[in-house]
Amino acid sequence: MSLTAPAGFRASGVTAGLKASGRPDVALVVNDGPSHVGAAVFTSNRVVAAPVLWSRTAVGDGVVRAVVLNSGCANACTGAEGFADTHRTAERVADALAVSAADVLVCSTGLIGERLDLPALLTGVDAAVDALADDPVGGTHAAEAIMTTDTVAKEVAVTRQTAAGTWTVGGMAKGAGMLAPALATMLAVLTTDAVVEPEDADAALRAATRVTFDRVDSDGCQSTNDTVAILASGASGVPVGRAELTEALTTVCADLARRLVADAEGASHDVAVTVSGATSEDAALAVARAVTRSNLLKAAIFGNDPNWGRVLAAAGTVPAEVAPFDPDAVDVTVNGVAVCRGGAPGEDRALVDLAASREVRIDVELHAGEAAATVWTNDLTHDYVHENSAYST
Amino acid sequence: MSLTAPAGFRASGVTAGLKASGRPDVALVVNDGPSHVGAAVFTSNRVVAAPVLWSRTAVGDGVVRAVVLNSGCANACTGAEGFADTHRTAERVADALAVSAADVLVCSTGLIGERLDLPALLTGVDAAVDALADDPVGGTHAAEAIMTTDTVAKEVAVTRQTAAGTWTVGGMAKGAGMLAPALATMLAVLTTDAVVEPEDADAALRAATRVTFDRVDSDGCQSTNDTVAILASGASGVPVGRAELTEALTTVCADLARRLVADAEGASHDVAVTVSGATSEDAALAVARAVTRSNLLKAAIFGNDPNWGRVLAAAGTVPAEVAPFDPDAVDVTVNGVAVCRGGAPGEDRALVDLAASREVRIDVELHAGEAAATVWTNDLTHDYVHENSAYST
Repeated sequence: MSLTAPAGFRASGVTAGLKASGRPDVALVVNDGPSHVGAAVFTSNRVVAAPVLWSRTAVGDGVVRAVVLNSGCANACTGAEGFADTHRTAERVADALAVSAADVLVCSTGLIGERLDLPALLTGVDAAVDALADDPVGGTHAAEAIMTTDTVAKEVAVTRQTAAGTWTVGGMAKGAGMLAPALATMLAVLTTDAVVEPEDADAALRAATRVTFDRVDSDGCQSTNDTVAILASGASGVPVGRAELTEALTTVCADLARRLVADAEGASHDVAVTVSGATSEDAALAVARAVTRSNLLKAAIFGNDPNWGRVLAAAGTVPAEVAPFDPDAVDVTVNGVAVCRGGAPGEDRALVDLAASREVRIDVELHAGEAAATVWTNDLTHDYVHENSAYST
Repeated sequence: MSLTAPAGFRASGVTAGLKASGRPDVALVVNDGPSHVGAAVFTSNRVVAAPVLWSRTAVGDGVVRAVVLNSGCANACTGAEGFADTHRTAERVADALAVSAADVLVCSTGLIGERLDLPALLTGVDAAVDALADDPVGGTHAAEAIMTTDTVAKEVAVTRQTAAGTWTVGGMAKGAGMLAPALATMLAVLTTDAVVEPEDADAALRAATRVTFDRVDSDGCQSTNDTVAILASGASGVPVGRAELTEALTTVCADLARRLVADAEGASHDVAVTVSGATSEDAALAVARAVTRSNLLKAAIFGNDPNWGRVLAAAGTVPAEVAPFDPDAVDVTVNGVAVCRGGAPGEDRALVDLAASREVRIDVELHAGEAAATVWTNDLTHDYVHENSAYST
């Protein structure tokens, strides 16, 4: 159930000493082909880390042979020297695998504004090459080596059957700080043994991430390092079209995104905010993001208080030109209890028991149209404040 | 040093029983003239409380005789019945003062989604009328009666001398939750004995709040109840023009806004984020708001960590069309220490001692233009989470 579930891939995770904790910190994923199709999406932040600058260019031709990832240091805000460090990392991988450095993606996560310990990282790369394995353990070791404040490694694999045969998609992800609106590095690598065209891989990845990873958290802001990459080996010999690939990638990305929410730093609740009755999907999304961004609502949920007034107040901050609706028509339902009807009190909020489960469902019906969207977030807890005041990312 | 410092005003604060704590909860401010000029600005939220709906209409003709304010209940999300409650409150004041209800503004703050205890409020209004006083105690009692989670009453008065004589501006404010991006009711009433035209009062109030109250906190979102009103009695006999009035109101509003930041719920630091070198004031403001909105940065400041990477990452979330700048040119200075130069590490962050004082200054130089703006916020603390998870607003 990992990166190495599809045929044609090897992976590894080793300890290079970049983390003070001594936990594994270098991961490597290699596509052994016969095809080497690759695509990736990156953070929308204008402040991007050196590995993002590198990988954006490297993926441009649609060919990716390997992805090397390190935790312990983000190599962000490190200037020209930081970029040179990333370049040298890619070259070390390329030399060992006898491929071009321009076909090696690099991902980093960890402290910002600090230089990498490059000698340690390069030694780790050599060890990661030696440790490459095509069995499930290889993928799991890779998933463990990219963890930062994650408490569990996140892996998934799905298999699809078509008339032409069976093909598989595997994946791993990290990123436990998804509660934060402005910075929470999320890295994911997906693999598939399907035979796909580069443009289909790119389109399917964008379609899948748009409705999954992009709808975890809040305001569309992303960290300096966010990267999601797909590598396709073609080893199954099964040709797969854009629609089929999009379906499978969406399933895999949704699963990984849900695991990220469940492992968010210090959170005690996972909150799904679904806005329906909007005039467009963008309008629904804007309202859902405004609600998931409200610190007051998130703190209320931590206190097991179904504070629907804070939902309404957050929705009201979205400009009418972005999301037309009548505030006096809005219904809010929390875990199935209609606590607000037509912008005024509905059923007794005491009927809502938020303490009963980790998952909370907030449904906002705008009564303005037919479109809907869901955004996931977490509650705002003492542990969140503690982790983010004590840990420098 | 209060609302009643200018000539022509009486004020009071009494206990009507709207607050479970039994603290004062109804305030009244009366303009005895000879002039009754009034202006007000309100929340930009589309979900507005009944008193805002009422007062927006009432202030339309530029005549205000009195402002009645209650704490303990926001009368927000209460539908047509809530509006009727506000209407009856204004009528009770108007009857007692023998003025028109259409010249009485109403402000409410407290719990959302709950009806007012109207009989208690109306009895409180009668008591507030009886208690009206033109001495400093009257103003102070009013300032105390509008407090919610505020720990201190907030009052100010300034006097200005012109060739035509002396005139005074007084003011009070409440709103201790300014750390929250989406909801933190802020109420302020200003008084002056200057002789002013209604359009000058309106323009001066808008100009003053734009650079003061509107730059406390984060993202321009406001609560369902925010109101700032100015009442001018003309009792000094000193005619004052728009520019002079703007200067004095800006001084008073800046003082009150700074007090709000200093009393923010659970905060341990007041943080001034100044963005300079921007292509326009709007661009500077957009970057400053993005930085003050970062939960990760706020949590880091609580931990006394001058985490400039989080400043840069937040700045990078502002679209280039809103604020053009080169991320590799940005300098960040924290409490005078240049921790980031040209988007990369500068002086040692260990030189910054955030524990030494409550006030923190973060200066972001974009090197893209000449414009600047400052936004105030607070750190994100355990006490903030506690207060906002335990207290239903």
